[in-house]
Amino acid sequence: VHVRYGEAQAMLAGDAMQALAFEVLTPQPGEGPADAGGSGVAPALQARLCALLARAAGHAGMAGGQAIDLASIGKPLTEGALLDMHRRKTGALLQASVLMGVACGRCDDAAHAAFADYGAAVGLAFQVVDDILDVTQESQTLGKTAGKDLVHNKPTYVSVLGLEAARRQAAQLRDAARAALGRCGALRTGLLAQLADMVVDRDN
Amino acid sequence: VHVRYGEAQAMLAGDAMQALAFEVLTPQPGEGPADAGGSGVAPALQARLCALLARAAGHAGMAGGQAIDLASIGKPLTEGALLDMHRRKTGALLQASVLMGVACGRCDDAAHAAFADYGAAVGLAFQVVDDILDVTQESQTLGKTAGKDLVHNKPTYVSVLGLEAARRQAAQLRDAARAALGRCGALRTGLLAQLADMVVDRDN
Repeated sequence: VHVRYGEAQAMLAGDAMQALAFEVLTPQPGEGPADAGGSGVAPALQARLCALLARAAGHAGMAGGQAIDLASIGKPLTEGALLDMHRRKTGALLQASVLMGVACGRCDDAAHAAFADYGAAVGLAFQVVDDILDVTQESQTLGKTAGKDLVHNKPTYVSVLGLEAARRQAAQLRDAARAALGRCGALRTGLLAQLADMVVDRDN
Repeated sequence: VHVRYGEAQAMLAGDAMQALAFEVLTPQPGEGPADAGGSGVAPALQARLCALLARAAGHAGMAGGQAIDLASIGKPLTEGALLDMHRRKTGALLQASVLMGVACGRCDDAAHAAFADYGAAVGLAFQVVDDILDVTQESQTLGKTAGKDLVHNKPTYVSVLGLEAARRQAAQLRDAARAALGRCGALRTGLLAQLADMVVDRDN
């Protein structure tokens, strides 16, 4: 969008799309196709979904993580600070997408906590693997410029831990995600297990 | 923010603040001071407030209006197109701020429609007056650079209608806003009437 329409319009598109997410979560009577029945989503559920998304997208989540990322360029980060940044930047929104699904269903507190653990592990794994792919893949496979993190002097799991330790970390996170699903009781979690594998095994 | 911290951080601050608005509208149990009781706001009201804000901030509201504004630089706009742009860019969010207050109280459909008319009129008046002040005030009074619209070749109420017609328009909108309040029944609307005056009579 920024190449085709300029930076200002791209920014506005982003602003509009963030608002659109909350619009979609709060269907009003009379909106959308008649048979979709906007009012069919209970208001209390709408509110819960908005609460989860807002917290994952904002200062404590994606926007905050990205701000830390920008502010950290060229600076050494401890593993703890890197973890905090990635939990916000990628982890929070991926975890929220799991918990929003959970909110639409029903489960006990133990299963809810397990789903939260699963989402956090998969979210963090996604970022660790992203960092790995940036140094191990060609741009063509990646579909974006490889080696960008190094060029921009960005702290990553690979620069902080080294490639092998980053790979071990990704594998551990996949195991943690799968273990969490084991605590979800009788709920069917096969697709979520596959998703954890896909996030870790992907090559782009 | 963009001067002090750079454009990227300023953009992220905006993203985070948009999310924060929805966070504030959906207080969760256990958040905030204990005596404020986050859970004291009924979930259905939270959902309604999010719905109003999302629609006023996004493509049909502020972001969409600003996008039209940007795309209109240097192009002649009809009065109808200018009206549509300003209704979105400024009117929608000002109207939403009125209707969100209304949602927190109780009123019948007629009063609700009257408040909506009031909000639309005040929102549009705000923008018409903004356009007028841009050509009639010094930068010092305005607190921002005067004459910017002309320099940027932006269509405004003054460039489309002329200064005198723009002033008449502002006065008519104030009258319309006050007339709408007259249809709100026995509800106390004195502060809203003062607000309409303030929006039109301001000099910065």
